This record gives sequence, structure tokens and C-alpha cells, in this order.
Amino acid sequence: MDRSIDSGMAKLKDKLLLMGGYVEKAIEESTQGLVEGKQDGFTRVHEFEKTINQLHKEVDEDCLNLLATQSPMARDLRTILAVVKINTDLERMGDQAVNIALNAVEYLRAPPIKPLIDIPRMADISRVMAREALDAFVRTDLPLAEKVLERDDEVDNLKNQIFRELITYMISDPKKIEQAISLILIARNLERVGDHATNIAEDVIFIGTGKDVRHGGSP
Amino acid sequence: MDRSIDSGMAKLKDKLLLMGGYVEKAIEESTQGLVEGKQDGFTRVHEFEKTINQLHKEVDEDCLNLLATQSPMARDLRTILAVVKINTDLERMGDQAVNIALNAVEYLRAPPIKPLIDIPRMADISRVMAREALDAFVRTDLPLAEKVLERDDEVDNLKNQIFRELITYMISDPKKIEQAISLILIARNLERVGDHATNIAEDVIFIGTGKDVRHGGSP
Repeated sequence: MDRSIDSGMAKLKDKLLLMGGYVEKAIEESTQGLVEGKQDGFTRVHEFEKTINQLHKEVDEDCLNLLATQSPMARDLRTILAVVKINTDLERMGDQAVNIALNAVEYLRAPPIKPLIDIPRMADISRVMAREALDAFVRTDLPLAEKVLERDDEVDNLKNQIFRELITYMISDPKKIEQAISLILIARNLERVGDHATNIAEDVIFIGTGKDVRHGGSP
Repeated sequence: MDRSIDSGMAKLKDKLLLMGGYVEKAIEESTQGLVEGKQDGFTRVHEFEKTINQLHKEVDEDCLNLLATQSPMARDLRTILAVVKINTDLERMGDQAVNIALNAVEYLRAPPIKPLIDIPRMADISRVMAREALDAFVRTDLPLAEKVLERDDEVDNLKNQIFRELITYMISDPKKIEQAISLILIARNLERVGDHATNIAEDVIFIGTGKDVRHGGSP
């Protein structure tokens, strides 16, 4: 049996991990710039995104080549299909990092309105979710993947709470409406980062078990 | 040469089209409910979404089976990989329709704040983009796919304009802040419908030409 597919699969995973590393850095730089009020990291966010986009194309091409030349079966086949999806999720996370940086630029046009409520905490959780989802993928670690799924509720609750606080704040001080809207949009960006991590965790469970846990299927 | 793959591919396309039909109906019901101030269609949006989610799982399974049993090559292989992605985009469009309905319920708690500015127009364009992207897929119609890509700028510009108008409106009448936020979120939901249609159009160009036009690659 030809196992040159093994080396192809290993290279594919490495490339996806490399991409995940850039995604994590992009989210970190964008949220750190927001929290510290420093915009110099945002240039790097845009550079990371370009690299992520390049890797996105390469990973898709690698998947196509593996399918065309190696006739992968069973778990390899499931893994490649999952990689096609994880690749998209990672690329979208890179987009969200750029969106956070763009919204942060808007926000930072005026002095900070208050200590950013729970946005730094939401950013930490989303970034950890992204890393754990990828770790779960590399090791096909199903308990870790399920932990990521659980964390998503936490992110959603935080977002709802942030929304409520910001709306109350806007009503009491309408001069700050534009800045509060920027924070609302950033909370949405972070929520989407968490959603993409959740998608990746679901794909990991699919690779490991062959079970589709999306849309309320039990793992 | 075994062409049982042809019947498999035809069935796959039919299922994706069926799913696209539900997506279009879900977007239509949700935006129509918002515009007409009637909530009775929102139950149907949730029902459509359940059907879309079921088809989402089935399409993924069909792709896996075709890859495992038919060793598709060249254009068939590209089409199946594109279907895996289009499937995800359609499912997310269904989620957006549900989000529009949920945000519309919030919005409709009070009398309409003004004639919804350009949201109905944005809804029309997004829905047409979704339909044209799927039409382009079925016929591998590259000029139509490129038309969808062009329309996305129109949707983005409309969204920016709607944002500006709503922020001005909130500043002049802070009592309406919550309702205006609901409309801002709906504008974002519609923007994302347009983004997903754009993704589908890019996949169609990839099927037809083998070229990856994402991230600024020229078609």
C-alpha cells in the first residue's frame, strides 16, 4: 500500500497549523491594539491577513491534489474534507481580525469611553477557542473539541451582556454613540471568531468519530 | 468508462438547488416580515432553516460518498470541492435569515422609526445575488458569476450609507437607539448574505476555469 499519502497529509496539517498561528497572532495584535490604544500593530494585522490569504489558496490546492492523486479513503478522506472547511474558517478569522483593527481605528479616534467593559475578556476567550480548536484538530483530541463547543455559549452570553451595557451607555450619553457602535461591532467580530472556532471543533469531532454533530446532533 | 458519477453529480446539484430555494424563501420571508411589520412569516423562516440544516448534512454526506466511491477527476473533483463550500455558504445564509427575523422581532417591538431607509433595497439586492450565484453554479455561467461579484460592492456601499444615516438618527433621537441598533444589525446580516453569494460566485469561477479568483486574483 502506497503511504505517500501519509507525508502529504502531514504536510497539509503543518500548513494548516502555520496558518492557524498567523490567525492567532492577527487576533492578538488587533485586540491588543484596541485595549492599549496603540495603532502600530494594525499594520501587522493586515500583513498577517495577506499571508493567511496566500496559505488559504495553497491549502485548497493541496487538498485538490491529494484527492486527485492519492485516492484517500475513510479517515484521510474525512480529514481532507474537514481541512477544506477549516481552511475557510481560518481565512474568515483573519478577516475578522482585520475588521477588529478597522473598527478599533474608528473607536480610537476619540478618548476611550470607559474601560471597554468585558471586551478584553471576550477577546481572550475567542483567541483561546481558536487555539484550542486547532490543537484539537492536530491531535484529534475529542474532549478538547467538546470544550471548545461549550465555551461558545460563554462568548455568546458575554456578547449579549456587552450589547446591553453599551446600549444603556449610549442612551445616557448620546455623544458617545459612534464609539459605542464601534465596540458593538467589535463584540460581533469576536463572536464570529468564536463561531469559526466552534465550526472547527465540530469538524474535529467528525474526523475522529465520523459523526456529524452540527445542528444539534449529539456527539 | 463508468459514468454513474454523472447521475451522482446531477443528484448533488439538484439537492443544492433545492437547498438554495429554501435559502431564498427564508431571506424573503424574514425581510418581508420586517418591511411589512408582520411577524407571522418568522415561524416559517425557522422551519426553512431546519430544512436547510438537514440538507446541509445530506449534501456533505453525498460529497463524501461521491469522493469515496467514484474517484472523480478534473472538473467533477473541482465541482465536488466547490459544493462542499457552497453548501456551507448556503447554510450560513439560512442562519442570517434567522438572525434577520430575530433582529426584526426586536425592531418591531415599537412603531417603525422611519421608512427603513435603504434596507428593503439592500434586502432585494442580497436576495437576487443569492439566486444569481446559484443560477451561475447550475449553468457554470461565468459572466453571471462575475456580475454577482460586482454587485457585492453595491451592497457594501449601501450598508455604509445605512450605518451613517442610522447613527445620525440615533444622535438626534436617543430614545430610538435600540431600534436603530436592530436595523444596523439587520444591515450587517444582509451584508453577510451578499458575502456568501460572492463566495459562491468565486467557487463557480473556480469550477469553470480552474482559477482561484479569491483574494484579488484576476478572473
